[in-house]
Amino acid sequence: MTNKITLHHGDGGVKTNALINEVFLKYYGANMDVSLSDAFIFDVKTSKLAYTTDSFVVQPLFFRGGDIGKLAVCGTLNDLATAGAKPYYLSASFMIEEGFDIDVLCKIAQSMGDVCKENGVKIVTGDTKVVEKGSVDGLFINTSGIGVVAESFAPSKIEPEDEIIITGTIAEHGTAILLDRYDLEIETNITSDCCALSHLITDLDKVLPYIKLMKDPTRGGVATVLNEIATNVGYNVELIENRIPMNPQIKAINDILGIDPFYLACEGRMILVVKNGFGKRVLQKLRKLRGYENAQSIGRFTNDYQKTVYLKTSIGGKRVMPSLEGQMVPRIC
Amino acid sequence: MTNKITLHHGDGGVKTNALINEVFLKYYGANMDVSLSDAFIFDVKTSKLAYTTDSFVVQPLFFRGGDIGKLAVCGTLNDLATAGAKPYYLSASFMIEEGFDIDVLCKIAQSMGDVCKENGVKIVTGDTKVVEKGSVDGLFINTSGIGVVAESFAPSKIEPEDEIIITGTIAEHGTAILLDRYDLEIETNITSDCCALSHLITDLDKVLPYIKLMKDPTRGGVATVLNEIATNVGYNVELIENRIPMNPQIKAINDILGIDPFYLACEGRMILVVKNGFGKRVLQKLRKLRGYENAQSIGRFTNDYQKTVYLKTSIGGKRVMPSLEGQMVPRIC
Repeated sequence: MTNKITLHHGDGGVKTNALINEVFLKYYGANMDVSLSDAFIFDVKTSKLAYTTDSFVVQPLFFRGGDIGKLAVCGTLNDLATAGAKPYYLSASFMIEEGFDIDVLCKIAQSMGDVCKENGVKIVTGDTKVVEKGSVDGLFINTSGIGVVAESFAPSKIEPEDEIIITGTIAEHGTAILLDRYDLEIETNITSDCCALSHLITDLDKVLPYIKLMKDPTRGGVATVLNEIATNVGYNVELIENRIPMNPQIKAINDILGIDPFYLACEGRMILVVKNGFGKRVLQKLRKLRGYENAQSIGRFTNDYQKTVYLKTSIGGKRVMPSLEGQMVPRIC
Repeated sequence: MTNKITLHHGDGGVKTNALINEVFLKYYGANMDVSLSDAFIFDVKTSKLAYTTDSFVVQPLFFRGGDIGKLAVCGTLNDLATAGAKPYYLSASFMIEEGFDIDVLCKIAQSMGDVCKENGVKIVTGDTKVVEKGSVDGLFINTSGIGVVAESFAPSKIEPEDEIIITGTIAEHGTAILLDRYDLEIETNITSDCCALSHLITDLDKVLPYIKLMKDPTRGGVATVLNEIATNVGYNVELIENRIPMNPQIKAINDILGIDPFYLACEGRMILVVKNGFGKRVLQKLRKLRGYENAQSIGRFTNDYQKTVYLKTSIGGKRVMPSLEGQMVPRIC
């Protein structure tokens, strides 16, 4: 196979099949009956399923801590996790620019295969399109996913005093993308937090009944996601600034850049809304898990109806954190 | 809302929500709990499900007989149909160029909603990304779908003498795209055959047990799809040229352009492989359906092992029809 993608790789003929076999099947190592069927058939026992989709247009394709492939699979696994679901099957669809390097494509497919393997999930259906040079910026990936919802997951109405927990330090993915995209010469060991959170569904099984909502703070960051929730449930949110876990380097870098990290994406964190009184228990469970040592209770819903997110600052002030209006960093996922 | 897409529409904040509410929810008219959950949860009774994905990069976005939205939904419904599945739920994900016209986006969403309505299927999960001007050619759409496989669908091993049926005239989608993309000044009433074939699963229910394989001849056309099947099953295919249904205008236009219509995409036709002896029965059923009057038995598998597709020409010759090697018309779907 030549080492560049040509339009012929997208024509549905001989070269498309070669690409599927020599790149995707090889590096995914997954169960795909691509040759005869355009759809994958599977048996389901009576259960609740979750279904989600996301397209990934991140730039650059490789960043500190991950690449578009890892991000695509993790993103979809995490969206399933927000529904209390363990991943079952994934789809993967590629839109590739003519001239794209096939070796790079292999690396990306390998990243996807790796995350799938670690999480016991298979890519079972896919698609490849190739467009002329200039018609897409390198590579976009769409993943969709089907998961099985845990029986113990019982989302319920959020009420005042319900607690808000975050599973780790914030703003690392957004900052990593900023550093790599604009080639900022800042010395730091910050990497993206990009990772799959699927295991939480199993690891938190016993406390899942107390978790009223899970949501991963990706685009728009923690502030935007909490605004969405506040708007939906009709109460205010009160966050305690000095409880919000943040790597000091993240704070320093964003101070220099004049960017508010509360609006920068995480790609490996989850916000949990926990029934009033059960936060401590959930937090204890979380902190015992490797990589969750920084999980923290960061605030609560209050008995006010402005649907507003407030931050109690470390110097005793109180400031409104509106939803994101205006792109902070485009194409972070 | 301004009438052009800006990067802010993709930032996950206020404008993304406005876009979801004012375009997608409005025109789909579907059940989407987009505000709080990133995944859709549904109950399944014990059954076989089918799962598929496709991305659409067609150019132009509007063509005689359809648009990218109609094509995206029909394409995924038809892929589900190849697995004997009635559609259940769809996902829809948009990758949009900054500056794209929101009124055009509404028209496309409307097309998608219309096909969904006609086929009793809902878009239940979605995603919107916006990239800078020049980073994508207008709009790409990914759709994925979940369907319920009909109990009577029993694909089985293809054998020599099994019959090959096509549900209608060929090459109309590919020709329509050619005419519109290159603004060829040819007077014709040809339109794309783009349509959903989901109803076939119900309408052919009684003869489904005799259907060994269904496959829609999209990219690469009838010739490429039959080559794929021949390669997989290990037998030759013999097609009878003068049985293959083709609108005379399609033949004339492709003669002028020097293009072989056997390699041009259909987007509303299905190839059926039927157990030897049952072709007539299936054909009778098909021809009674509106829009299927031109269904035809076009050939059979033979007891030869070169995995080759032969065409018995109208003048008594026999020519090999290899799989497509080299793009005929790029970006037809």
